This record gives sequence, structure tokens and C-alpha cells, in this order.
Amino acid sequence: LYARPLQDVLEEHGFQPHVFTIPAGEASKSFACFQQIIDWLVQQKAEQKEAIIALGGGVVGDLAGFVAACYQRGVPLVQAPTTLLAQVDSAIGGKTGINHALGKNLIGAFYQAKLIYADPAFLLTLPERVYREGWAEIIKYAMILDAELFGILEEQVGSLLARDAGLLSAIIARCMRMKMDIVQCDERDGGLRNILNYGHTFGHALEAVTEYGTWLHGEAVAIGMEVAARIAVASGLLSQEDAKRQRTLLQAFGLPVQCAGVNIDAVIQAMQRDKKVRAGNTRWVLVTGIGHADVYSTIDAGIAREAIAAVCTPGGQGASQ
Amino acid sequence: LYARPLQDVLEEHGFQPHVFTIPAGEASKSFACFQQIIDWLVQQKAEQKEAIIALGGGVVGDLAGFVAACYQRGVPLVQAPTTLLAQVDSAIGGKTGINHALGKNLIGAFYQAKLIYADPAFLLTLPERVYREGWAEIIKYAMILDAELFGILEEQVGSLLARDAGLLSAIIARCMRMKMDIVQCDERDGGLRNILNYGHTFGHALEAVTEYGTWLHGEAVAIGMEVAARIAVASGLLSQEDAKRQRTLLQAFGLPVQCAGVNIDAVIQAMQRDKKVRAGNTRWVLVTGIGHADVYSTIDAGIAREAIAAVCTPGGQGASQ
Repeated sequence: LYARPLQDVLEEHGFQPHVFTIPAGEASKSFACFQQIIDWLVQQKAEQKEAIIALGGGVVGDLAGFVAACYQRGVPLVQAPTTLLAQVDSAIGGKTGINHALGKNLIGAFYQAKLIYADPAFLLTLPERVYREGWAEIIKYAMILDAELFGILEEQVGSLLARDAGLLSAIIARCMRMKMDIVQCDERDGGLRNILNYGHTFGHALEAVTEYGTWLHGEAVAIGMEVAARIAVASGLLSQEDAKRQRTLLQAFGLPVQCAGVNIDAVIQAMQRDKKVRAGNTRWVLVTGIGHADVYSTIDAGIAREAIAAVCTPGGQGASQ
Repeated sequence: LYARPLQDVLEEHGFQPHVFTIPAGEASKSFACFQQIIDWLVQQKAEQKEAIIALGGGVVGDLAGFVAACYQRGVPLVQAPTTLLAQVDSAIGGKTGINHALGKNLIGAFYQAKLIYADPAFLLTLPERVYREGWAEIIKYAMILDAELFGILEEQVGSLLARDAGLLSAIIARCMRMKMDIVQCDERDGGLRNILNYGHTFGHALEAVTEYGTWLHGEAVAIGMEVAARIAVASGLLSQEDAKRQRTLLQAFGLPVQCAGVNIDAVIQAMQRDKKVRAGNTRWVLVTGIGHADVYSTIDAGIAREAIAAVCTPGGQGASQ
């Protein structure tokens, strides 16, 4: 949809762009696809000073970013995210990577883009489900860092779902700024940056056990935030009321807070392979109130299992919402 | 040979080392081998704070280093080089990578080790040919940066080939220091670091067209230095006498300065895929005198071809020396 217009602009300015297209979906974040792109670059005789532009959603950004990190030990990278989720989250901060059969983003690199070009106009053509999943990451920012933003989201659900351009631009810029501030303090996930993984410990595991085919990333994160909120409540860290406000807001944006037909043991096992595991302990990002988060590595395994069981309803459907 | 003793020491100090062994030779710097090691790490549930120790020669260092760079977006890396070539060159400076069918190290990362443990005692058990190839890189340092070292090498060939421990330690430390100084100035090959590629433009191409099976890396670099010296002489940059001193020293260390049965067009084509190519121009590192080097991007293609033709003798043998 946007490749041709971008090529035209680049050609007008004297560049010679070449296009490699990948199939939509998480399945493209594979070794096979990574290798295909490298082969293509070698055949094109792409040189070390030539840039890779990742035009697309999070999958394109992660995959093309990892290619840029590795081809000839690194070529310049431009992120041009076309989804809400990529604009507010995945295109920022230099995390790139591909998936392993046993875990998401297990192979990758920290590699910063030279430029991030996030145009809200891209969002007007997004399919509804893909648009909505982006709000999971925005609600995440609000929950972990920005109580004021949480209030705005509660008030403006209608305009935001109607893709009001002005409001959208302001919120995207606010989220990008939050993420950039955190990444500048802690590029390599040593401390502060970990709180951005709120909802992701369970979310990544859910995606892995459903083989990246059932849930969109943002949907899995929404369910993961519900799990985390239940753990926080059961651990005496979060009020029932704040947990309920989160649940209500997620649902207002059409996001799931439950999943059916998932094997709980398989999910717990998948969490053990998470990159944040230390000495076998699953580390949970939990909120202690709207706008405040921290990392907890000594959460009672029984409490975690109960929270997961409460969210994973029986039944074989697994489909969204 | 050294894995068991290293494991014993680590176990004595409370670590739990696990060993993954790869077949010797450049062929192991492949996608397939990279993927096998990643699979193994995932199966072992290796965590983000656990270190990878690259115990072996340059192939092990490049491959294990790239694995360390990519597994979970980076885990701590220790380089424990066991060959002369790796100790003075490849283990230092953070270049890691694997080969592509169409070019060496085309996929990789800059990833610095936390520790480089280079024990000259490892060298006492090296096969003669593998020991000798290391001298190509040492002669390279002397040619590009250190005329005094060149003189020492000329005088001490006998003791050095006899692996005199004291002398060896001093020379290894001297080369490591030179490389570290350069890398600290220019980690990512932007300028100064390029001179370390003296002999490598032709050397890498020769390795590629002979499918990494005929020449050891150091041998290919030795032949590449002879090509570069001939280009420098023909371009009026280097004296015949200095070129001859280089040739004599390479031969004194049992290194080749000619290669047979190589298709010249194929080598020239392979050089076009070199990472140092800019706007289609092959960039040559040339010495203008012993101890002084620079990068030249406007070398006459006819002069380069003639130098290559003079070094690539006809005949189908291709074997060393």
C-alpha cells in the first residue's frame, strides 16, 4: 500500500530503492526469512553504506532491523512503522530479532535506527483488529508510567477508536517520548527498561504456545496485563479497583482479557524460557497503582498459577474476544 | 585438548560449564552451525546472564562470538583463543560473524568480549601449518604500523619458529596492544581500523573462490599482502626493496606468496562483494613503506589485475607453498 509512494519519493530525490516483500504475520520472523533477505542483499550487491528501510508493522521492523544489524556487521537502518503498535512501541528502542520455535525474539540484536518515521496517516488504512491491538501497548504505558494518560484514554475511547487524527498524533508522540526516555536511560534492558515488559511475560508465552497463530501481539499483551493485575491483587500490591479500571479500559478498546483452550502447564513452561528469567525465577512486572510499576522476582508460583488459571478459561476455541 | 582442563577449573570455582564442539575449519562458520548452537542453548535453557566462552581458533571465536551477540540479543562473551592467529588478531576487537556462500563474514555483528584470555602455552601444541599462518597477521602489523617489529621478526625467525616462549609472549602482547589501540579509536571500521585489512581484500576473495578449503586464512592474507605490495610498487607508492623484504619475511615463515589454478576473473568478482566496497570501487590498503599504510579507493583496475595475474600462476594445483 505504501511501498510505491515511498519508492517514488526516494527516486525523486536521487535514491535507487529496491523492494523485498515478506508475507504478513509473525511466521515471517524466522531463520528462513532472515536468510532469504540476506541472500537477496548479497545478490543485489548491497553495500555497507546503503540503508535498509523497514516499512511495515512490528514484524517487518524486528526482522528488517535484525537484517540491518547483521548484514556486513551492520548497515544503516530506518524504521518506518505503519501500525499503531509499531509506532508507539516496537519501532523505538533498537530491539530487533526473530523467533525460535521455543520462544519469541530468542535471536536478535540491539540495533538503533538512524531515523524513525512514524506517520499517523498510515493508520487510517489499518484493519480494525490490527488498529485495536496497538492500544494494548498504549494502555501499558499508561499503567506503568502515566496515570494522566490513563485518564485521557478512559475519557476519549470513542474519538480514539474513530481514529481522530489530532488526538492520535498527540498520544503517539507522548508514548514515543516515554519509550525513548526509558531506552536512553537503559538501552540494554539492565533495569528500568524491564518495566516496559508489563504484560509481556505471560503474553510472549501465550504467543509461543499458540504458535503465533491465534493472538496478535497486542492481544496477548492485553491478556498478559490481566494476568499481571490478578497476580498483583493477590499479592497485596494492587487494589481490586485499579485492576478493574485496567480491565474495563482494555475491553473498551475491544481487547481480550481471557483466553480459551490454552494448556496452562505449557504456558508456564514457555515462561521459563523467557529472556527475563534469572536463576530459574520468572520475573514479573507488576503495577502497584495506575502509573507505577516494578519488577518482582519472588512472586509465589502458586499465586501466579492461580491468576493464569483464572484467565485461561477451559474450552478449545482460543479465538479472540 | 583444552576443554576438559578448562571445565575442571571452572567447576572447581563453582561454575557449571557445558560444552558444544564444532568441526574444525571455516565450513563451520555457517548458518547451519549457528542455528545448531542456538538450538542447543535454547534446549539447555541458557539464560541471559550466562557466558559463552569461545575456546578455539578464529572460526570458533567468530562463530561463538556471533552466537553470543544474537542469543537473547546478547549474552556475555569470553574469548579464549588457542591459535596464534586468533590471539594476535581475530579474538580482539569484537568482529564476529559467519560466512555466506558468496562472501566471507557477510553476516555478523560487532560484539566485544568481556575478557580475552590468550595463553601462549596453548600454542605449543599447534600443528606447524596452523602455527605458521599466524605469522601472516603479525607480519601484517609490522608492515602497516611497526617497522621496529619488522626488524625483530627478520632477526628472530629461527627462535620464533621454534616457539620460544618468552619472545613469543612479548610479540603477542605487542600485537594485541596495537589492535586494541586501533579498535578503541575506531570500533566500527569507519576509518583507521581499515588498515588492519591489509592483505585481506585479495585474501578474502581468494578464500571465497576456493570455497575456504584450500588456503588457511593466514596463508590467503600472505598472498594478499604480496598482491598489495605489487600494486603499491606499480602505483609508485612503495619501493621494490620494501616489497622484497616483505616477500622474503613471509617466505622465511613458510608462508605462500603465490597461488596456482585460481580463476582471476572469479577472484576480481569476489572482491566486488567485499564489505569495504564503496560505490562499486574496490578499496585497497597499501603500504607506502614498512610501518606505514593507507586506504586507496582509486587504484587503477588494470594495475590491480596485473598484480593479481602475477601472483596467480597457472596450473590446477592450488595447494600451499
